[in-house]
Parts: sequence; structure tokens; C-alpha cells
Amino acid sequence: MPVSCELVPKEPRPTGAALVVDVIRATTTAVAFFEAGAGEVWFAPGHPEALALKARGFLVAGETRGLRPEGFDLGNSPREALALDLSGRRVVMSTTNGTRAARLAARATPRVALGSLWNRRAAARWLEPRLGEGVTLLAAGKEGRFGLDDAYVLGAVASLLPDRDLDDATLAAIRLFEAQPDPLAAIAPSAAARALAAVGLEDDLPAVARMDASPVVPVLDRREGEYLVFVPR
Amino acid sequence: MPVSCELVPKEPRPTGAALVVDVIRATTTAVAFFEAGAGEVWFAPGHPEALALKARGFLVAGETRGLRPEGFDLGNSPREALALDLSGRRVVMSTTNGTRAARLAARATPRVALGSLWNRRAAARWLEPRLGEGVTLLAAGKEGRFGLDDAYVLGAVASLLPDRDLDDATLAAIRLFEAQPDPLAAIAPSAAARALAAVGLEDDLPAVARMDASPVVPVLDRREGEYLVFVPR
Repeated sequence: MPVSCELVPKEPRPTGAALVVDVIRATTTAVAFFEAGAGEVWFAPGHPEALALKARGFLVAGETRGLRPEGFDLGNSPREALALDLSGRRVVMSTTNGTRAARLAARATPRVALGSLWNRRAAARWLEPRLGEGVTLLAAGKEGRFGLDDAYVLGAVASLLPDRDLDDATLAAIRLFEAQPDPLAAIAPSAAARALAAVGLEDDLPAVARMDASPVVPVLDRREGEYLVFVPR
Repeated sequence: MPVSCELVPKEPRPTGAALVVDVIRATTTAVAFFEAGAGEVWFAPGHPEALALKARGFLVAGETRGLRPEGFDLGNSPREALALDLSGRRVVMSTTNGTRAARLAARATPRVALGSLWNRRAAARWLEPRLGEGVTLLAAGKEGRFGLDDAYVLGAVASLLPDRDLDDATLAAIRLFEAQPDPLAAIAPSAAARALAAVGLEDDLPAVARMDASPVVPVLDRREGEYLVFVPR
């Protein structure tokens, strides 16, 4: 089965490569950190492990219920990230859904990349040469449950792949995307979008909904202990 | 959250009522058994437990990889079921996905019903008075994975419910349904439909795709040991 989607976050079956999507907002924000010049983005297993890297000069970014946690330098906002000059800086992130989903993916394959609407076309291009071994698109979802926003983005990416064997979840994701080609309208009703608005971060929503705006694909370079280290590609 | 969908088979959170859908074919076939006059349909935990009821006068129905297992009286075909006169008979079923999904649902609520395209409207009507306590629509899927066919039927049912709080999975299921109002075209690309065709049962597909053709809702009446006993409503 060359293209599989995991619409509900869980450890995928062994796969040739995995694209992890938490469009609202961790994987969009990771792309934004690289757009802002960051050299590496580390995904931490939790908030304490993220804070532990502060002493080593990392910028510490993340969220709890959408907001910047105590002691963190930055939240999980792609708008905020894009406004910074992070040339040569390293960033460590810890979030509720996205960084956890990346850890699930990394158990199934060493080839992991981060996808979003911003880098949709670039992410599809990264997946394409790996189709022969099978690729998995993994939705981070929301607190272990299905997220409409991430499923939509899986479909947006998958719709660009050459027409191969697609599993049922991929067919469904593509139908979701094609049924509503306007990304903002498509993801606005999601629980993740409504949760953003509930904490006053509704301006991030049009920001994450920009499609094909970045050529950057964050790819897993290596593990450092419990951390996943992403570099731009 | 009054309406939730489980698009991937798993035990739902506690809920006021659950509708289980394995449209290709167990829950469609259960409706067909009642249409043919059956008094009760028992879901067995496995094939041996189904066969064990033969001595008590039950008709034993089910499938392994789509086909009638050794020693069973009937397969898992709604067309075959509908052609019988089962007045006053009891049927016991054991299948790969649907009967298992019903067991998951029965752990989350004693109020369980079986849904399909055939009884879509009747099933929605059964759910409606239970919305206040929260209802869950559960897709049986295929061997633990997402099934396009069942997700579509969840959307077909949910589209009839009054507009309440819908979780992301329900919103997605409704979009899937609305994107392709023709049920046969919608479910034909699913892995379950293709598996039917692969064992020569492709004629069952237009049969299961008949929408709103039956007023029968199989509802869980009681447990008998390891068996779930459904009666028509």
C-alpha cells in the first residue's frame, strides 16, 4: 500500500517515510522557525525537557492549551516565529499534539518530515521518491482524537501525489480536501481552530491557512537522546 | 459533545447511545435478517461460539475473508438473507469487523443499535431522542483500520441529525457524504468493496448501497453470556 494515512494519531505500521501534520499549529510553526532562519528545531518529549535546553542557548517554544507555558521564550505561533530573526539559532519545541505525533512516527521509520499547508507542495515533493517503499501521512489530531484540520491537510498533500494505491483513509482525506478547496473555510470549524479563537489567537488561523507558501521541509536529521532533531530541507 | 464519530474502530468513550456501522456487510446483513422475519440476531464473540448455537436451532451466519466459513449455514450476504423466510427463527452471526465493533460499542453504553445505508433514516430517528445524553457513531472499519465505506455511512446518518455540537470526526463524515451523494459511487473504491469483488461477491455492492430502504433498526436487547442479542425496532 504505497500511500497510507493515519487520521487518528497512533503509531503507524512500519513505513518507508512519514509526514507528520499538526497544522494548528506545531508543524506550521516548525516551518516558520526555519523560514526565520533557525538552524535546527528540536522536538522535546515534554515541557521540562524543553526548558532543560535553555541553558544550552536554545530558544524554548511551545504551548499548553494554546498558550506559552511559564518560562518558555515563545509560544507556538507561526506568526510570532516569522517575525523573528533566528539566524543560526536552535529552537526546542514542546506542544500538546504535534511533537507527540512526531515521536509516534519516528518509531515507525527514521525518515520523518513535518507537513503543513505552508509547505504542502514541498512536502509532497519530498514524499514522491519514497512512494516505492510506502509512505504514511500522520495526522496529529487533538488530544488523541481525529482532527478535521489535520485530516484536511493530509488530503491536500496526498492530492498532489501521483495516482497510486491509496488506502481508504487517503481516499477520504483527498475527498475532504477536494470538497472544500478553500483551506481557511475548511479548517475553521475544527476543534483546534475554535480552541485557538477561545484563547484569543484567532489571527493565527488565516496565517496557518496559507497554502504552498514555503519551500522548506523540516526533516528528521537525528535523535539526541529523547529529542528529535529536525533540519530544513 | 452531543454527536461524536469514531472513524477508526476503538472502544468509544462512555456515551448515551451508540450506532455501529459495518455497511459492507455485517450491519446491513443484520437488517436483512430482520427484514426476512428473524426474531433475534445474536452477535457471537467468534466462530466457535456461533457454531455452538446450531444445536439450539439457530441459523449460523458469518464470514471469513468474505466467504461462508466451514459448517456455517449462511454467509454474510444481505442479498442471500433477504431471499429467505426466517419467520420466528433466530440467527447467530460472527464476522471479521462488524460483530467485533458492536462489542466495543457495548462496553461504552447499553444502548447499541446497528446502522447501514438501508436503515439510515430509521437509525437517525432512533438516535435523535438520545442526543441530549450524547451519541456516538462507530465505524467498524476493516481489520482495525479506517474504512471509507463506513465513514461515509456515518456521515449519511449524521447529516440527518439536527444541527448540534458535532465533533471534528462527525463534521468530516458529513463532508464525505455531501461530497458524493451517490452511495454506490462513494463506497465502491473502498477496500471492503474491492475485497468483496475479489471473492466474486460484487453483486452485494449495489445491494448494500440502497439508501433508506428499511425501517428496521436492530437494537441491543440484552446480553446472553458472551453474546449480544439484537431485536428489531
